[in-house]
Amino acid sequence: MNYNQLFEQIRNKRSFLCTGLDSELEKLPKHLLKLKSPVFEFNKQIIDATARYSVAYKPNLAFYESLGIEGWQALEDTVGYIRSKYPEIFIIADAKRGDIGNTSKLYAKTFFESMDFDAVTVAPYMGEDSVTPFLTYTDKWVILLALTSNKGADDFQYYTENNTRLFEHVLKKSQDWADKNAMMYVVGATRAEMLTDIRKIVPDHFLLVPGVGAQGGSLQEVAKYGMNEKCGLLVNSSRAIIFADDTENFAEIAAVKAKEVQQEMEELLKDKGII
Amino acid sequence: MNYNQLFEQIRNKRSFLCTGLDSELEKLPKHLLKLKSPVFEFNKQIIDATARYSVAYKPNLAFYESLGIEGWQALEDTVGYIRSKYPEIFIIADAKRGDIGNTSKLYAKTFFESMDFDAVTVAPYMGEDSVTPFLTYTDKWVILLALTSNKGADDFQYYTENNTRLFEHVLKKSQDWADKNAMMYVVGATRAEMLTDIRKIVPDHFLLVPGVGAQGGSLQEVAKYGMNEKCGLLVNSSRAIIFADDTENFAEIAAVKAKEVQQEMEELLKDKGII
Repeated sequence: MNYNQLFEQIRNKRSFLCTGLDSELEKLPKHLLKLKSPVFEFNKQIIDATARYSVAYKPNLAFYESLGIEGWQALEDTVGYIRSKYPEIFIIADAKRGDIGNTSKLYAKTFFESMDFDAVTVAPYMGEDSVTPFLTYTDKWVILLALTSNKGADDFQYYTENNTRLFEHVLKKSQDWADKNAMMYVVGATRAEMLTDIRKIVPDHFLLVPGVGAQGGSLQEVAKYGMNEKCGLLVNSSRAIIFADDTENFAEIAAVKAKEVQQEMEELLKDKGII
Repeated sequence: MNYNQLFEQIRNKRSFLCTGLDSELEKLPKHLLKLKSPVFEFNKQIIDATARYSVAYKPNLAFYESLGIEGWQALEDTVGYIRSKYPEIFIIADAKRGDIGNTSKLYAKTFFESMDFDAVTVAPYMGEDSVTPFLTYTDKWVILLALTSNKGADDFQYYTENNTRLFEHVLKKSQDWADKNAMMYVVGATRAEMLTDIRKIVPDHFLLVPGVGAQGGSLQEVAKYGMNEKCGLLVNSSRAIIFADDTENFAEIAAVKAKEVQQEMEELLKDKGII
């Protein structure tokens, strides 16, 4: 999917919601556990209930890998299901990978060929040759970690050389590798006040913003400081939507929660004159 | 496995070789491809041929994930095979993971519970709460990326605040989270001259050193600048051993190559008075 197609989907759905499929087995509604593939069944129902409000889905690999082979099967089935039933949707592998060149190349093959993800999150620590193998695919994206939503972000991401913090250096340096048509950045919603500084460096890029919902970030603030003329935001919510209810009504309640977020996003898009 | 058990194994085998199981399907000897599980079959033969010279094995996850479910099966089978047949050997998941706390916890479960790895490589960018979930297991290890062997290491790892480079800050800061009994560091052999500076910060820790062999690092230099009284080194070689030959004799040739490295290591251990 390319930049304009993503923007058009945002306008059509009046939403910039990315629903995080952090489908941890132990948190699933109990009635699903007797099924053969509880995680895939859960995802399918969540997706059917929330696809009209979501422009992107983001399974985090940890929740699938922890189940071994069954988890990988559920992941492959989930991506295939979205791709076939909702082809307009942007699918993100939240994998935070990054390794030496010949190894990153294999990770890219995993996510972009073996599975048909649109994007993969990548950790920047190992630098250019750990990132560029993901950039050789047309209309596929790297979403590079810049400023993350967790407390530990303080440990290294604010490290400062010549008045430039490491996350700002990551934003600057990585523009040598790809432009806004192939690169996005992770910026945590819990750091919304930093979005002003970040937009000075990457005014046009899309930002993937986790941390709204269970982690406490504010959607209003993210939009205030981070939205650009093409929206430029994918705001992720995981637990607050998918685990809002653990009864047989879980999908219905997830739809209610996703719709609430979508309606708030619709207002923000209107305020900005985008729709 | 604990620190002393690892040291004893090094003395017993007169080796500090970690053999990297970067078992990329396309590089396997052709006669294996007609088998049901070519990657596992390859690993099994490599392991049987090299276990007497290796104190550790290190499968890099990328090569397994790229094969989907079959790859995960091969990985699980490989770890199970080493564990049952060579229980003295240290097994490293070269996964370079790292995510927010509740997610890293699942990755830890994957590698330390679902599979019985001794250690996992972790990327430091997201800081403390991305690393500590791996540290809650007894006699299991985090191997934190410090200074990597690839060219891209220059992009961020040398970023300098108050005369301290980022990789040095990672070494210092992470000592708040664990000591030499639960933490090791990745330091590339292509940066051997930096080992002197690194040993000033972490004199007693084990270092996992990739980059000898195909990547061009020198074992002599690594030992000269990096070895301590308890050896303190696991030097990895992957392609130069496992892909030294692609005929039906591949395992025999891998043994020859591993033995060559072991014998060089034996001399270095003797020079240091460790054996």
